[in-house]
Amino acid sequence: MALADLDDAARNEDGIATAVNILKQRFGERCSTGQSIREQHSHTMTYIPAQLPDAVIFAQSTEEVAEITRVCHEHHVPIIPFGTGTSLEGGVNAPNGGISIDLMQMDKILEVSAEDLDVTLQPGVTREALNEHLRDQGLFFPIDPGANASLGGMVATRASGTNAVRYGTMRDNVVSLTVVTADGSIVKTASRARKSSAGYDLTRLMVGSEGTLGIITEMVLRLHGIPETITSGVCQFPSVDAACNATIMAMQCGLPMARIELLDALMVRCMNDYSKTSFADRPCLFIEFHGTPASVDEQTQSFAAIAEEFGGTSIDWVSSTEERSKMWKARHDAYYAMLAHRPGSQGIATDACVPISKLAECVSETVADVERLGLIAPVIGHVGDGNFHVSPLVMMDDADEVARAEEMIERLNLRTIAMGGTCTGEHGVGQGKRRFLRLEHGTGHAMMRAIKDALDPNNIMNPGKVV
Amino acid sequence: MALADLDDAARNEDGIATAVNILKQRFGERCSTGQSIREQHSHTMTYIPAQLPDAVIFAQSTEEVAEITRVCHEHHVPIIPFGTGTSLEGGVNAPNGGISIDLMQMDKILEVSAEDLDVTLQPGVTREALNEHLRDQGLFFPIDPGANASLGGMVATRASGTNAVRYGTMRDNVVSLTVVTADGSIVKTASRARKSSAGYDLTRLMVGSEGTLGIITEMVLRLHGIPETITSGVCQFPSVDAACNATIMAMQCGLPMARIELLDALMVRCMNDYSKTSFADRPCLFIEFHGTPASVDEQTQSFAAIAEEFGGTSIDWVSSTEERSKMWKARHDAYYAMLAHRPGSQGIATDACVPISKLAECVSETVADVERLGLIAPVIGHVGDGNFHVSPLVMMDDADEVARAEEMIERLNLRTIAMGGTCTGEHGVGQGKRRFLRLEHGTGHAMMRAIKDALDPNNIMNPGKVV
Repeated sequence: MALADLDDAARNEDGIATAVNILKQRFGERCSTGQSIREQHSHTMTYIPAQLPDAVIFAQSTEEVAEITRVCHEHHVPIIPFGTGTSLEGGVNAPNGGISIDLMQMDKILEVSAEDLDVTLQPGVTREALNEHLRDQGLFFPIDPGANASLGGMVATRASGTNAVRYGTMRDNVVSLTVVTADGSIVKTASRARKSSAGYDLTRLMVGSEGTLGIITEMVLRLHGIPETITSGVCQFPSVDAACNATIMAMQCGLPMARIELLDALMVRCMNDYSKTSFADRPCLFIEFHGTPASVDEQTQSFAAIAEEFGGTSIDWVSSTEERSKMWKARHDAYYAMLAHRPGSQGIATDACVPISKLAECVSETVADVERLGLIAPVIGHVGDGNFHVSPLVMMDDADEVARAEEMIERLNLRTIAMGGTCTGEHGVGQGKRRFLRLEHGTGHAMMRAIKDALDPNNIMNPGKVV
Repeated sequence: MALADLDDAARNEDGIATAVNILKQRFGERCSTGQSIREQHSHTMTYIPAQLPDAVIFAQSTEEVAEITRVCHEHHVPIIPFGTGTSLEGGVNAPNGGISIDLMQMDKILEVSAEDLDVTLQPGVTREALNEHLRDQGLFFPIDPGANASLGGMVATRASGTNAVRYGTMRDNVVSLTVVTADGSIVKTASRARKSSAGYDLTRLMVGSEGTLGIITEMVLRLHGIPETITSGVCQFPSVDAACNATIMAMQCGLPMARIELLDALMVRCMNDYSKTSFADRPCLFIEFHGTPASVDEQTQSFAAIAEEFGGTSIDWVSSTEERSKMWKARHDAYYAMLAHRPGSQGIATDACVPISKLAECVSETVADVERLGLIAPVIGHVGDGNFHVSPLVMMDDADEVARAEEMIERLNLRTIAMGGTCTGEHGVGQGKRRFLRLEHGTGHAMMRAIKDALDPNNIMNPGKVV
């Protein structure tokens, strides 16, 4: 499909054969060349075709990752880091073959410091496992991309999700990383201090680099106290536009929303069918507030007043933990709900993020395109950040429909860039958005390329992704 | 003095002469080679000796900066960006000569977007000028390093200051930058979207790079609504230790402190003398809360309870804008107050930042060193971030005293690094902390060097600083 950039340099057959041989001897059964394992490690959740690695190694320590990397460095063999395989943009594909390093056995939580509000852990810990571990201490890690992704993968893609409007993205919640670089060196990107002016921000350079500059093998993440009070609710609006405008107003008023999620009527229908919920199928906002009882009370009143101004219904408040979990579980399963809505179709995720002043305009022009092109494409979004996903559900064997979806996506990304936004708010570039990255960044793309060439001169770190 | 790294490659006399000639012709009176102008543009607020540039150009646009850079690129001539000259670490010195680009005529606020809570502006705008401009719109820019620095300089050093505990540092409050790179290209680091996963984080790479990777010529910064209620206060403690421990507890409890500043008894005496204030000369915390009336009320009550637990006095609350301004003005003038305390002395700024769990220990071991070595060194700090400044006031012609100050500072930085902290929380590296940067970052320093070599292969961008 024309949307993704799958091409790259040719395979280095001799180097790969030699490296696989060495690594098989070294890692024994933890180095697998079986077809099904290799298929699992190229599987992505997207329309992008699978490209298999030549071997998969289940690494257990930073030193092992460094050792594998040194072998691959010597023989110029690609390395593709692998977590839960929930990338939406082909991030774990192996276009030139090479070694997939599965990091899911590196799943230890090494130290929780309640005093410093941070945790030191390995990249294979998932966000749900971390929060399970933290619960007794009254702490949590807020970033929540929906999927129960590995935290290493979330760092690598600069993930965010529903809570980012309040707690920031992975960019804001990583204190320090341990990274294995292209020559097998081990680099600690920063100290554990809350802030620093000590040289270049290597931590932020690695966050979002999708394995193309180094492999993350240990992390220090910021934690937050579980709020005393959490209140969620649903508010229906007469139109997607009205819901966007209420969001803009809430953000402008400085309401510290913990979550503010847009769903259009079609998305609500998909969700009701899949998750057996019974929300009115009208455009709505799923919202949540965190704080002390008094401050949550203030916030909910302020929001209700804003919603009313834009024609919103009175808000259905949800306070019990059980009901709240059900509501957000339904939200998290949105991707599966969409796919179930049109059996046999493939959902093509888009990830536009614009300055919030442009949100209503960007969403409504996109929805107009969807209608004009006769596509089926639910809308869902983290609208407090100006980020929304319009996902055409496409029968991939219908060339005409595929072409119409391409047109819609092309126009969406160009519109987003023209409005001062980005083609990817949280999914990452992978193979799927390389062309748009070039359009979005212009001369900045050349700077990214220079950094990539400097830190990975042989282009072995997850080649064919990002730049 | 041994603390700073002043050495570097030799001067490129021919290249400099040629470039100065070309630039004088091009910029006329805006290119000055007069001694006093050159002295002003190497003046730093520190013990580090001045090293003069060969010419100073007052630039007026991104295109002019690019033009100057292309000339310097061709002739391999150093470029040193200059703002208000308030660097504490020799950031504006010209160890190999070259061209100082004064950016203070680029002082336009180009666009305020209240909807997007951001502002587009030039680097020569100072933080006070920006806040003056914003006041009528109910917005403010929170980062406040004390000095009325230029915002470009604050981006370049990743500045922070008193409000960072609540609002983050410059790292967290820059949306996008326009940067002129070493070959004279103009790069926009990011879109105006609130979040992005579009490739490497060029914005964060430039924030804190101190002019060594590029010259910042335009910026988009994040704004915040002026809080409905602001309440400040002062609370005395029986010891510095007790004040640190109260801070740790307040942070752990998730109290959203807007400011929490430690002053030791000596610092309070300096301040009272200089600013004609009358605070009790005991260790104390200057605190501030932002929010709605109800939430500020909750916060002040919670803090009072914590302070009491650690032997703090009842808090002297300050609500009137006038009194509050006086209190924080005194805090901001701390550096001048220290110098006035010992006429003829030079204050050597230190900038340790440790995980907050280590704060009390790090401060008390440092104070013990100060006493053992017979130094005079007030303590002041942004303790909510684990960041504190112990500044020996040194008679620089007393070799023995200088040596004792060096010993104290060396031990402080090594202690800080050993405790998982950083040698510079907010001042930057400049010439003063290069040696400690190497110690702190180890293999990470080599990665910084590789980035520097890739983006500035001829080492013309503020050479002799940071890496």
